[in-house]
Amino acid sequence: MEAIAHQSVKLCPFMRQTISSAQGVKQLRSANLPAMAKKCPVVGHAMQKRDYATASAAPAAATASKLGAETVANHATQESSFDFDGLFERDIEKKRLDKSYRFFNNINRLAREFPMAHRQTEEEKVTVWCSNDYLALSKNQQVVDVMKKTMDKYGAGAGGTRNIAGHNQHTMRLEAEIAALHKKEGALVFSSCYMANDAVLSLLGQKVKDLVIFSDELNHASMIVGIKHANTTKHIFKHNDLQHLEELLQMYPKSTPKLIAFESVYSMSGSVSEINKICDLAEKYGALTFLDEVHAVGLYGPHGAGVAEHCDFEAHRLSGISSVPNKRTVMDRVDMITGTLGKSFGTVGGYVAASSKLIDWCRSYAPGFIFTTTLPPAVMAGAAEAIRYQRRHLDLRQQQQRHTSYVKQGFEELGIPVIPNPSHIVPVLVGNADLAKQASDLLMEDHRIYVQAINFPTVARGTERLRITPTPGHTDDLSDILLDAVDDVFNQLQLPRVRDWENQGGILGVGQKDFVEEANLWTEQQLQLTNDSLNPNVLDPVLQQLEVSSGIKA
Amino acid sequence: MEAIAHQSVKLCPFMRQTISSAQGVKQLRSANLPAMAKKCPVVGHAMQKRDYATASAAPAAATASKLGAETVANHATQESSFDFDGLFERDIEKKRLDKSYRFFNNINRLAREFPMAHRQTEEEKVTVWCSNDYLALSKNQQVVDVMKKTMDKYGAGAGGTRNIAGHNQHTMRLEAEIAALHKKEGALVFSSCYMANDAVLSLLGQKVKDLVIFSDELNHASMIVGIKHANTTKHIFKHNDLQHLEELLQMYPKSTPKLIAFESVYSMSGSVSEINKICDLAEKYGALTFLDEVHAVGLYGPHGAGVAEHCDFEAHRLSGISSVPNKRTVMDRVDMITGTLGKSFGTVGGYVAASSKLIDWCRSYAPGFIFTTTLPPAVMAGAAEAIRYQRRHLDLRQQQQRHTSYVKQGFEELGIPVIPNPSHIVPVLVGNADLAKQASDLLMEDHRIYVQAINFPTVARGTERLRITPTPGHTDDLSDILLDAVDDVFNQLQLPRVRDWENQGGILGVGQKDFVEEANLWTEQQLQLTNDSLNPNVLDPVLQQLEVSSGIKA
Repeated sequence: MEAIAHQSVKLCPFMRQTISSAQGVKQLRSANLPAMAKKCPVVGHAMQKRDYATASAAPAAATASKLGAETVANHATQESSFDFDGLFERDIEKKRLDKSYRFFNNINRLAREFPMAHRQTEEEKVTVWCSNDYLALSKNQQVVDVMKKTMDKYGAGAGGTRNIAGHNQHTMRLEAEIAALHKKEGALVFSSCYMANDAVLSLLGQKVKDLVIFSDELNHASMIVGIKHANTTKHIFKHNDLQHLEELLQMYPKSTPKLIAFESVYSMSGSVSEINKICDLAEKYGALTFLDEVHAVGLYGPHGAGVAEHCDFEAHRLSGISSVPNKRTVMDRVDMITGTLGKSFGTVGGYVAASSKLIDWCRSYAPGFIFTTTLPPAVMAGAAEAIRYQRRHLDLRQQQQRHTSYVKQGFEELGIPVIPNPSHIVPVLVGNADLAKQASDLLMEDHRIYVQAINFPTVARGTERLRITPTPGHTDDLSDILLDAVDDVFNQLQLPRVRDWENQGGILGVGQKDFVEEANLWTEQQLQLTNDSLNPNVLDPVLQQLEVSSGIKA
Repeated sequence: MEAIAHQSVKLCPFMRQTISSAQGVKQLRSANLPAMAKKCPVVGHAMQKRDYATASAAPAAATASKLGAETVANHATQESSFDFDGLFERDIEKKRLDKSYRFFNNINRLAREFPMAHRQTEEEKVTVWCSNDYLALSKNQQVVDVMKKTMDKYGAGAGGTRNIAGHNQHTMRLEAEIAALHKKEGALVFSSCYMANDAVLSLLGQKVKDLVIFSDELNHASMIVGIKHANTTKHIFKHNDLQHLEELLQMYPKSTPKLIAFESVYSMSGSVSEINKICDLAEKYGALTFLDEVHAVGLYGPHGAGVAEHCDFEAHRLSGISSVPNKRTVMDRVDMITGTLGKSFGTVGGYVAASSKLIDWCRSYAPGFIFTTTLPPAVMAGAAEAIRYQRRHLDLRQQQQRHTSYVKQGFEELGIPVIPNPSHIVPVLVGNADLAKQASDLLMEDHRIYVQAINFPTVARGTERLRITPTPGHTDDLSDILLDAVDDVFNQLQLPRVRDWENQGGILGVGQKDFVEEANLWTEQQLQLTNDSLNPNVLDPVLQQLEVSSGIKA
């Protein structure tokens, strides 16, 4: 067959031309030349008529040669095109084979029966145990009422980009609200936090010459994509491993521009980073800090600004939302905080909060901000209302924490493996893609409980899990039903319990004898506080910040 | 000075290490070495004490050498960090200097007084003449009512990604509605069409080995970004220049995978592509076609599916929405159509419509789809209602067209230059960034009319313009006020009229004597039809398509 291939190349003026370029050779290396040649109107004809093994197709070659380049171009129309459909099919088949093909569940979460949802028909009800509506604010009456009122007055959509008819009081108020929440000079709202992470990280990489980015290995896909688009040197440090981070930082002089990108709560494991220590390293080595608090806003800190606020809980609690504590806080030390409006804040969208200079710079240069329609006024008004509401409601965070503890303790008593962490995430370890999906299906069909299985590529193979997210709406009664159901499914599928993992030496802190559990982020004392213990200085957003997002102040 | 640079390199163990790598050398090439050296705790000290011209800093170098690498790392903490703030400031200053710095106008569009909006206070009212709410559907009572009802029942937000609790009947119905509109097998909804364009184009480039992308030079920023992220060979063809496109296509064998990315209506000029001819080339040379109909959906075709539908107006009008004409249409020939829910469809979000294979492939692989929160149920229900509403209302499109003609004709009579085009965009040429902004400001302050100035980088320098977008709500009375106002501003600022451009030889079809204007896309006959002339077979979305987006059918 190789002889035929060589023959084809010799015969065909197109091929001779093609393989003279490096890319052409690369393409041909994987191509089936005899099959391609058979389709050629010149060579193919010759090949059919003659014995392929002989080298006597010369007449056809001579004809082709005489016709020259123009004929080659015309011949192109009779060749076959690239088989795109075949590629799409094969790629999808790959997913089916490795069990990572996703079937979406039709889940219609009911505002008035939270945390219930109906499936295809309204009669088929299930309890949702895996949504990221962490504080149940998407069904909050104040939020919904503000949205409906805004829609009545200002319509369904913004009607333009921020620069062209899409900038309004709702964007300004929401951005001021976010800036005040994180005690930063400014904030910028994007269509999603995926977009915020991608836009900000890629812009920094593209505009700051020789920027080196240091990224935690468990960072979210949106940060990975943003760092990829940053198109600059990057180093991945081992998850939450500050020693490894420092080793990498040390490789560069302090004057080299650097950025450390990390999260506060890692969504699939519930692990939490040491923000203050990362800021120490950033200062020592001259790096900007980029902190994704997507899974922490609403849930940590006295006002729900996230883990960075939680680090100085008392100082922030006493100073209130509109004023800054009398000391430099961890939140102050972080240069950029990104967050979402789509999880704890119950709506949709994402943002970055930072200095007014950095915000104005992103506002002026990030294509993902500039060239897209503004979120609807009602969505922005609803998100602002959700932020205001939750920052006054310490009790929501406390309930969420208590429900989490109840569920975690219940699993512990049943010997069901939960990946240990100091946060609100309850990752029940299964350790097998197929079994995780089966467990999820059984919970749904036998117990009317919806918990999505989390498989590769979202988590590493062998660490597949059921990710459970209690909310203030998941009462102890509902938790008891969940615990029984998971216990039943573990029995049915004979899934490994903690003692089984112990026998295998353990994994991710489950059944590992030397593993030291971190203390919960929320202390008992913090859980005892009341809403009244918050400084009442929480009513007005920092009004001077209204101007940053319009380009007036910065 | 070069002597000092050489000296610094010799003295410093860090620099010796740095310049041994290729990247280090590259970095140093543009660096100011003597300035950097002065900041160094070892060399800087020595440089201050000695005559820079002599080469006698040896003692300091010896000390540094003894201390070794560890000391260098510690020294790093005393060096100065990269000045990020300085960079942000300089970049912003650049924008102020070249007049491309943007000040956003606070515009609050009032649903019940369309097309009016209020500025900072409710009393300051203006008429909006530049929003992309082309059909005024954001204030449509049916759309708003559906959204409010959906919000009452299903809450403010979706609460998760499509895979985790965020897939629901609203996503399925909206995607079926979009697929039916474009008569494709499936559709996929994204947070925005910026995201849809970026996600789909970058995925194709990354997954289809050796893909070559051919992109119109006026393509939208989101496509440019997507093509950049595709990280593959690309060719830019001159705007709407099919001969140039063919020359580029001819460079590759037919079997090389190719993609042609283009728009139907180019938003800033109003120019329109020849979709059918581009499809001819795509077939001839074996390319996928990627068509952005963002500024055309709602406005062209009997059912508002865009220019591709408009190409076979009668066939689609007679067959209705749920069935396919008895011939292969231009819409059939296009492989991927992207569109927005944020302009004619009055809400927010974007989509791609294509074969079920391609949709399932994007659904399974595109990070920008997978890792982001689903749009709120109410937004999706509102968008679906808007699509349904507009497809039965030919009159909306016709009114929009009539109002456009009225305004264009008015400007012609006044000799005010409008860049000629066959679409609904009215680009009034100013030709200078500063004057365009001044014109926009004068319209706002003197005439209470809001038209945003469009400057570089959105359009080329020297072609700055006021982009006017009439809607069904912009009556002839409002148009007369606009025409007077623009005339007044042109007088006040002594902006060039058509005759002035003629004297200069013309530009972009304005004042160019040999320029042949294209016929309007809407014919007089099409403008005479009534809603009743549409096939009533328009009520149900194609139900079997509901399953594609769940991964059940594909």
